[in-house]
Amino acid sequence: MSADRRSSPEELLDAARHGDRAALARLMSMVERGGDEARRLGRLAHASAGGATTVGITGAPGAGKSTLTSALVSTMRARGEQVAVLAVDPSSPYTGGAILGDRVRMGDHALDDGVFIRSMATRGHLGGLSLAVPEAVRVLDAVGFPIILIETVGVGQVEVEIAGEADTTVVVVNPGWGDAVQANKAGLMEIADVFVVNKADRAGLADTLADIERMLSLRSPSGWRPPVIATTATTGEGVEQFRDALADHAAWSIGAGVRAERRARRAEAELDRIVTATLRARVTALHDAGTWDAVVGEVRAQRLDPWSAAEDLLG
Amino acid sequence: MSADRRSSPEELLDAARHGDRAALARLMSMVERGGDEARRLGRLAHASAGGATTVGITGAPGAGKSTLTSALVSTMRARGEQVAVLAVDPSSPYTGGAILGDRVRMGDHALDDGVFIRSMATRGHLGGLSLAVPEAVRVLDAVGFPIILIETVGVGQVEVEIAGEADTTVVVVNPGWGDAVQANKAGLMEIADVFVVNKADRAGLADTLADIERMLSLRSPSGWRPPVIATTATTGEGVEQFRDALADHAAWSIGAGVRAERRARRAEAELDRIVTATLRARVTALHDAGTWDAVVGEVRAQRLDPWSAAEDLLG
Repeated sequence: MSADRRSSPEELLDAARHGDRAALARLMSMVERGGDEARRLGRLAHASAGGATTVGITGAPGAGKSTLTSALVSTMRARGEQVAVLAVDPSSPYTGGAILGDRVRMGDHALDDGVFIRSMATRGHLGGLSLAVPEAVRVLDAVGFPIILIETVGVGQVEVEIAGEADTTVVVVNPGWGDAVQANKAGLMEIADVFVVNKADRAGLADTLADIERMLSLRSPSGWRPPVIATTATTGEGVEQFRDALADHAAWSIGAGVRAERRARRAEAELDRIVTATLRARVTALHDAGTWDAVVGEVRAQRLDPWSAAEDLLG
Repeated sequence: MSADRRSSPEELLDAARHGDRAALARLMSMVERGGDEARRLGRLAHASAGGATTVGITGAPGAGKSTLTSALVSTMRARGEQVAVLAVDPSSPYTGGAILGDRVRMGDHALDDGVFIRSMATRGHLGGLSLAVPEAVRVLDAVGFPIILIETVGVGQVEVEIAGEADTTVVVVNPGWGDAVQANKAGLMEIADVFVVNKADRAGLADTLADIERMLSLRSPSGWRPPVIATTATTGEGVEQFRDALADHAAWSIGAGVRAERRARRAEAELDRIVTATLRARVTALHDAGTWDAVVGEVRAQRLDPWSAAEDLLG
């Protein structure tokens, strides 16, 4: 089936399941646009999703996450594994597919049918990605990708939240004084299931490994001690072990019931965000009537207290 | 009028205006409890608030913010100025007044009628302080304090947001490598109207001053260049200049119309938070009927997609 302009979510999903990458790209754009069509797609995808393992990859800008992700994809492809990559960049000015970014990222994988790579950027609304990313992941899952890598660009609150809402969360740091300590401050130590010290050929590797081990020893025991993998993504060094560590965590978390519990919590958090977003949308609908602006104007001028204003708007 | 258990917000506000500190303490507790009574108090306070200057003081834990605040209070009292201090600690286990903390903080000022000091802690709900702090400030304003210092304990997102929502925002750093750079990473550079390098008797003062000046030179010009004040709060060194810098910023921001614009934005942001909180409360009311738990259970088990669940809950 060709993915023409009038295709419904049902038709596009069917085409994407049969390998139509243009259809899949259009489904991703549908998710980014939001609205009724995206909701219908979300329901369809939900019915057949759940089989994929999601891996969140986060760390400070410059840690080499993109290169590491690309190297991981190469390793997985060499093992015959299909994989999807979602690159999440809240600050990117690109929207609707970030075409340039995708082409750069695809690099070696551009002509490989076993890989799908997509960038998602915010559309001005901070809450947007928190809602759009799980939807996009669900579509990739429903289409049949067994593994979905979610790469975040920075360590802002939204990115950490997104990376932390995966089956397995990877934190990437570099050798050198203080890098692991910074990661700790950013709240990354608590969410890491696997640590990668990338650019391991640089000076300071031993110190950074020791820093991480020391901080890990302060974590309360949870049945899983995060492995610390040294990689040099540019040469592929350590990436096989990285892939194995991901598989180990997947096997453990499924067996221990941790994955199911995390997914349940994630589903509840997503419902919570949707409820809030829906309520906000209903209130914003008043905006068109001019009521909102008038009331906000009174509040801005401090002629009306905010509680009375809220009553006016919601009454 | 004595502040007995049955006093209304009207009676307590009247008593507090006449210097009854027990009444004022009970008003603060009323704000912390929230609910209808707090909303009535908020409306009353709003009608006569607006005369006070609010000063937010933030910086990394250990920077000496409490000692600096106490030294600032001493300087202000020596000048005959009345002042209220609101110490905001989202992570504090103390609630309802944080009595121990207040006694420790009051220190020299415990018996001084020209000073009112109060700690506010979260009550488990993150949004709580974002709503409670402006209400508490409004009461202190309506009661007649000309200056209200809002001291935050850390540099978490909520604390930075609270400190940034003042007429004047003070960022406190210490001498030493990287401290100012850390402050920059935490987003403190953009919100600072006044910088204080406290513990100025320590090594590294010149470097830190240079770091700050360099970072300030990268800021887009706004008509106000934040002064950088070196203080040693434990000895009082530099605190007079700190007080003067606060007065300078107040005079400039009033004259330039910046204060009025900031207050308008703050009022709008507060309305926004109240609207969200009110809507959430309405949805949570369903919880009592058991509906919420049942639907969440279906979503957690992934038997129901979150969009359909949200419709069930909000329909």
